[in-house]
Amino acid sequence: MIGVEDHLQRCLDGVQPLDPIDLALLEAQDCVLAEDVVSPMDVPGFDNSAMDGYAVLAADVAAASSEHPVELPVVGDIPAGSTTAQHLAAGQTMRIMTGAPLPSGAQAVVPVELSDGGVRTVLLSAAAPSGQHVRVAGSDVRAGDRVLSAGTLLGPTQLALLAAVGRARVKVHAQPRVVVLSTGSELVDPGVTPGFGQVVDSNGIMLTAAAIDAGARPYRVGVVRDEAGTFLQTLTDQLVRADLVVTTGGVSAGAYDTVKEVLRGLGTVWFGKVAMQPGMPQGFGTVGPDATPIFTLPGNPVSSYVSFEMFVRPAIRKMAGHRGLFRRSEMATALEGWSSPPGKLQLARAELGTAEDGSRVVRLSGAQGSHVLGGLARASALVVVPEAVTRVEAGDEVRCLVLDRRAR
Amino acid sequence: MIGVEDHLQRCLDGVQPLDPIDLALLEAQDCVLAEDVVSPMDVPGFDNSAMDGYAVLAADVAAASSEHPVELPVVGDIPAGSTTAQHLAAGQTMRIMTGAPLPSGAQAVVPVELSDGGVRTVLLSAAAPSGQHVRVAGSDVRAGDRVLSAGTLLGPTQLALLAAVGRARVKVHAQPRVVVLSTGSELVDPGVTPGFGQVVDSNGIMLTAAAIDAGARPYRVGVVRDEAGTFLQTLTDQLVRADLVVTTGGVSAGAYDTVKEVLRGLGTVWFGKVAMQPGMPQGFGTVGPDATPIFTLPGNPVSSYVSFEMFVRPAIRKMAGHRGLFRRSEMATALEGWSSPPGKLQLARAELGTAEDGSRVVRLSGAQGSHVLGGLARASALVVVPEAVTRVEAGDEVRCLVLDRRAR
Repeated sequence: MIGVEDHLQRCLDGVQPLDPIDLALLEAQDCVLAEDVVSPMDVPGFDNSAMDGYAVLAADVAAASSEHPVELPVVGDIPAGSTTAQHLAAGQTMRIMTGAPLPSGAQAVVPVELSDGGVRTVLLSAAAPSGQHVRVAGSDVRAGDRVLSAGTLLGPTQLALLAAVGRARVKVHAQPRVVVLSTGSELVDPGVTPGFGQVVDSNGIMLTAAAIDAGARPYRVGVVRDEAGTFLQTLTDQLVRADLVVTTGGVSAGAYDTVKEVLRGLGTVWFGKVAMQPGMPQGFGTVGPDATPIFTLPGNPVSSYVSFEMFVRPAIRKMAGHRGLFRRSEMATALEGWSSPPGKLQLARAELGTAEDGSRVVRLSGAQGSHVLGGLARASALVVVPEAVTRVEAGDEVRCLVLDRRAR
Repeated sequence: MIGVEDHLQRCLDGVQPLDPIDLALLEAQDCVLAEDVVSPMDVPGFDNSAMDGYAVLAADVAAASSEHPVELPVVGDIPAGSTTAQHLAAGQTMRIMTGAPLPSGAQAVVPVELSDGGVRTVLLSAAAPSGQHVRVAGSDVRAGDRVLSAGTLLGPTQLALLAAVGRARVKVHAQPRVVVLSTGSELVDPGVTPGFGQVVDSNGIMLTAAAIDAGARPYRVGVVRDEAGTFLQTLTDQLVRADLVVTTGGVSAGAYDTVKEVLRGLGTVWFGKVAMQPGMPQGFGTVGPDATPIFTLPGNPVSSYVSFEMFVRPAIRKMAGHRGLFRRSEMATALEGWSSPPGKLQLARAELGTAEDGSRVVRLSGAQGSHVLGGLARASALVVVPEAVTRVEAGDEVRCLVLDRRAR
């Protein structure tokens, strides 16, 4: 039996960030940047007005006030989008819109609210020191600035910055393609009413959704019967579209444990026990001509999910180029006590909440059997109970992995 | 000028959760359940083995120990997926796999690890009280149980539970279809090198990505010139696919503020100033025959983003049926001081981090001008500085809205 940390390290050592691909900006959302992005241009590209108002020379309005407005002839009108360079001479003004290019010679903008809004001549009732309400070229980004570094996760504001510096496409780590394979002759597809002895393949749905949640592009193959030839053929067929394979079922000590039987023969997949509850039987290795990484998760739904969280999710995130591989964790006060097996890391399904005094509290989300989906579906956290601890008492401070969702 | 809370309330009152639609499980990921789900069946559907081992009557192995194993004839072999009901008589055993149906008459399972693994007769070296390693029918879910309530966000484990209780499809609130329209004759599409006076439409990319992040299905229309007829025609054309419209630009006090000019004429859109920095000029109302909600955001990128966060994102989440509409917030210690305008709620772009002592700390993410994308792209939080506060001092505890991403 090996420890959770050792097995995790084995899994992480066995996967690498995927090669960069070039994607359109909106396709690159939630991907990790695989290049340092240097701006080829100043942003803004030209001095422009931060307000709707009147472009002026500072000296011309130095004496202006609401009591003694200054009158200037309006010699032009510059809308945003004006592409003609204009020049403002002393003693004149031009009407200018937010974002419009400042005419050369102009030094500042008097907001329209501090004017009578005139179109031929205008009364300006405030001074405007040089630079006032002007966005200077390059004041956001200078040509040559590195605006984003490799490793940055691309969200809305990073994509906007990429667009602003002239990019329509960007190099990111590809999202891992994950093939999800459920094995078990007892399994039927969702929507099929299970007969006596049959069970719905809820794991396939769960692991596919979890892979999406982790940032992968999953392919759910569906149910494969417990038959060595069928399993090997299906697995072989799927490798062409897999950066990673995740199987569930067929890995315990039974007589029909097809996954183990087939993959053991290859000699490239480790099988063994990991000191955790749930999820003890684990397997990890490579298959096929490209040495595609494969995780063989147990078939019990709770064991399968917790194994995914502990090992597969961090591996997917490493492949996708993320710097942070793990869930955020929080400390919380246990509202009840429970026991934990000696010598195993327990990952208890739990509901995390906030007490009246604002402190974080946690309680179990129902029965902890490894087949109990009801409690798993209510869980918002996994409480991490260390190997040496055999009992959590009410009032103990415990560490919780927070099972945040995508759309928060 | 109205307060942020009042404007938010106006916006939230103006949108409603979308009608339920019926989706396949994996399409419903990250959607909000629009029905109470009652299980029509027990889960598990039949008593089954939690281990690979031997099904027994408790009395037959009551005296078994490693020193004095009990020998029993193996009269059958039950794989997982076996659909034939079998019966175990006293004085006999059957080999049984994890998940396989327990034969009637059997009361417990002795794990294979506590046997000699025999196939004709077997030596069992431990007692097994009635119920040991047996998952009783209905022990996870009973027929008639309400397993999930309307309002639940569907993630991997909830989808698995739905599958397990026989569902292949589920009623959820539709994800809002959001049309994103950028207005401004100065705008060019991403990838087009802006000429003198031109600016890349980074807002369109940003708001589209932010809408995805909020759980919507956005359509980015692209750039619309500052011309009333064109804007109105484009808007009208788009309404057929919009549950919500978001425009950016064209709403300040300038002479070319097309959005305001066109929509004011309809009489169904409110325009005004909201007491916040950035993002003061706001508009919200309805357009078209179906009274489609519309937000008119300012054109400055930072104002636009912050307005989206404060008003559009909560509205999208209400439309999608979410119970929690707002970002999670954290308190953090300001590492520097800065000023805030009197009478306005300031939303300062900031980087949230953890100090060496484990406490949460925050600093500004660069220049705070409303055109500065560089600082916005580095921000991981918005610091909320109340209207009455005109100065944040280093060491102050401040509230931060955490800009969590989808793929964490």
